[in-house]
Amino acid sequence: MKRIAESTVRRLSLYLSFLEGIERQGLKTVSSDELARLGGTTSAQVRKDLSLFGSFGKRGLGYFVPELSEKLREILGLGKQWRVCIIGAGKIGAALARYRGFAERGFNVTAVYDSDEAKIGKRWETLTVRPISELEKDAAKQGFDIAVVATPAENTPAVVKQVVRAGIKAILNFAPVQLSVPSDVTVRNVNMAMELEGLSFALSNRSE
Amino acid sequence: MKRIAESTVRRLSLYLSFLEGIERQGLKTVSSDELARLGGTTSAQVRKDLSLFGSFGKRGLGYFVPELSEKLREILGLGKQWRVCIIGAGKIGAALARYRGFAERGFNVTAVYDSDEAKIGKRWETLTVRPISELEKDAAKQGFDIAVVATPAENTPAVVKQVVRAGIKAILNFAPVQLSVPSDVTVRNVNMAMELEGLSFALSNRSE
Repeated sequence: MKRIAESTVRRLSLYLSFLEGIERQGLKTVSSDELARLGGTTSAQVRKDLSLFGSFGKRGLGYFVPELSEKLREILGLGKQWRVCIIGAGKIGAALARYRGFAERGFNVTAVYDSDEAKIGKRWETLTVRPISELEKDAAKQGFDIAVVATPAENTPAVVKQVVRAGIKAILNFAPVQLSVPSDVTVRNVNMAMELEGLSFALSNRSE
Repeated sequence: MKRIAESTVRRLSLYLSFLEGIERQGLKTVSSDELARLGGTTSAQVRKDLSLFGSFGKRGLGYFVPELSEKLREILGLGKQWRVCIIGAGKIGAALARYRGFAERGFNVTAVYDSDEAKIGKRWETLTVRPISELEKDAAKQGFDIAVVATPAENTPAVVKQVVRAGIKAILNFAPVQLSVPSDVTVRNVNMAMELEGLSFALSNRSE
């Protein structure tokens, strides 16, 4: 498959989320104009994005909603089950391990790690917090697909080295750190504090 | 002030979060090399970013941590208090209204809106959920700085038009929609589902 830009993948996620909304309303077809309006883009961009993955829709009729949403779920790998380990047994990790939407979408938390002696050995529902020093050995046995990194900023570069050494190829990063990883490792960041600081910066530096 | 790129503002947030970590460890100075390592960038970039806002640090000594972190907090507008309204009285809104870190950083939720008759009038701690139709009138009185948009995808474009009409200049968007807003409105997005889909896409489409 050709290399797909991250911005395209983000739009595919947006299209899918509208299609799921439209399905809940019981509608059967949608035009590229409607998808474009919700995706903040043009109908030409919608057609271009979708044409990367095959031929969908009929001229004058639009796209069939169940067919297109099923196809997008498949493209985005959402039918699959992924093994997830959480690094950092703090609040974010605990919230994710309990969050039902996470498992419902196929993200199954199968292990939790920390370096803090006070946390190692603690029970987390069905899991026990394990020492980060065991990550590489465990990964060789269990084959984690995704590491959720939720460690303090100052520990994160060392933790990420261990994740990479363990052969994990996808990282969901909650630490306020820009990760450096090899090109075959995919990183996505979630950082609400940073987004808020971006807003307060913009409000503080308005030209008027 | 000159126009600062969003990527620069993100790095300033990163630097601040390291400096706060370094302060907790009791260290007094930090080099641009150390900041660069944690920020996933170069020391030349660190010096360039900081030079936009004045002259910091001493050759050979590095930056004084308390001074630089105070200055970054000021640049990012973090000393101030912001009035925040939440649009969409669902789970995300409720979590934010209860989240202490939100108020501690100066983001004060002063009103909640919804269009659902079943939610309007409900008590939310000290607030009462108000009809979205009152947003524009309330904003003229209270002057909201930031709108948190946490509405279903299909309602979001209409909601955002009302937010813009109410004169609110900063939006934290949790809806899985790309917002179209005038250039004087700043938008930041938080969307964990989309980040997860980006990872599952990457894992599903690995070339090996």
